[in-house]
Amino acid sequence: MKQAINHVVVPTRARGLYEVTHQILDWVSDQDIRTGLLTVWCRHTSASLLVQENASPDVRTDLEDFFRRLVPDGGQVRYRHDDEGPDDMPAHIRAALTQTQLSIPVENARPVLGTWQGIYLYEHRTSPHRRELVLHLIGTPA
Amino acid sequence: MKQAINHVVVPTRARGLYEVTHQILDWVSDQDIRTGLLTVWCRHTSASLLVQENASPDVRTDLEDFFRRLVPDGGQVRYRHDDEGPDDMPAHIRAALTQTQLSIPVENARPVLGTWQGIYLYEHRTSPHRRELVLHLIGTPA
Amino acid sequence: MKQAINHVVVPTRARGLYEVTHQILDWVSDQDIRTGLLTVWCRHTSASLLVQENASPDVRTDLEDFFRRLVPDGGQVRYRHDDEGPDDMPAHIRAALTQTQLSIPVENARPVLGTWQGIYLYEHRTSPHRRELVLHLIGTPA
Repeated sequence: MKQAINHVVVPTRARGLYEVTHQILDWVSDQDIRTGLLTVWCRHTSASLLVQENASPDVRTDLEDFFRRLVPDGGQVRYRHDDEGPDDMPAHIRAALTQTQLSIPVENARPVLGTWQGIYLYEHRTSPHRRELVLHLIGTPA
Repeated sequence: MKQAINHVVVPTRARGLYEVTHQILDWVSDQDIRTGLLTVWCRHTSASLLVQENASPDVRTDLEDFFRRLVPDGGQVRYRHDDEGPDDMPAHIRAALTQTQLSIPVENARPVLGTWQGIYLYEHRTSPHRRELVLHLIGTPA
Repeated sequence: MKQAINHVVVPTRARGLYEVTHQILDWVSDQDIRTGLLTVWCRHTSASLLVQENASPDVRTDLEDFFRRLVPDGGQVRYRHDDEGPDDMPAHIRAALTQTQLSIPVENARPVLGTWQGIYLYEHRTSPHRRELVLHLIGTPA
């Protein structure tokens, strides 16, 4: 049984979904672990992880529309916590409603994502950020 | 340290919760691993996983009522992505709000679910589907 | 490769967020495992886990306000399942929208939480409860 850990920086430009599937698959396939468990951890409370369809960009637009309606930015709703602007508290709420972590079984050196599944970092702040993911892999070479 | 992987197909008839607790517990108890970690991965973006009370069917009905109000089907709300019908995009949003993956510690060859906890596959589409879960178990025989 | 498991009881006084970060970090640092994966499992369907900012208490108040608006207690909305009172079914829905489980990579005997990340037990019932978490750690001493 072996382990590998990697820190990945994802630069974001604005609120929205950033696909990290290929970066993650590439790193997993470079390790000498064919069967195991991959864990992705997002080190933030105003950005999060999401597994979504990677075929249609419309899915991402509709998803963002939904979250904007569900968690209105400050001004439309009054938040106590608004130190960093009207998108500060909504970012924390959106992160609470999505995922900070994913663990995916690995077979043949590849996480068992379904045909349409992509892994996304969801930036919830409106300004650019440098986001950090930690990847952990445990398993065996065979 | 050992590992085991299994692919499980769950046929669904319509939108709703399908309990998979017993299938999962049975598979875990059949492996030669008493102490470890079980991971369940759902290979879809329009179906997901949910841990819920397995005593009262009313809980499942109320939960479905809640999600139907929170994420209205197309027609009531306009979605860009509606290739597969009015339940297509709502299914992706419901999946984003629930879980694609669960990891549960295993003691005495049994995932440590609480007394009232059941594991459900949540079908978010209105038509029947064949859904696939991947189970991964890592641990030791003692 | 080694494993360790621990059961932790968290007494709650009322609805709200209870920080468990330090308890969890202390237990991890006491194990002889420097590199690995920590999993936290919540054995309930009316309490859950949340990763949130641990700097500002306003974040927790705004978060609770949000969930109270999103999932109104019985009386404002009619639920079938109300055996244990108007906060019974809302507790199940809030748990469904947050996390029952977290898995965090461990480096240098410490889960790789970001600077502002704290781990909270979210009590969704209005009365006091004794909640149980199961901690599982797998990894190596080096």
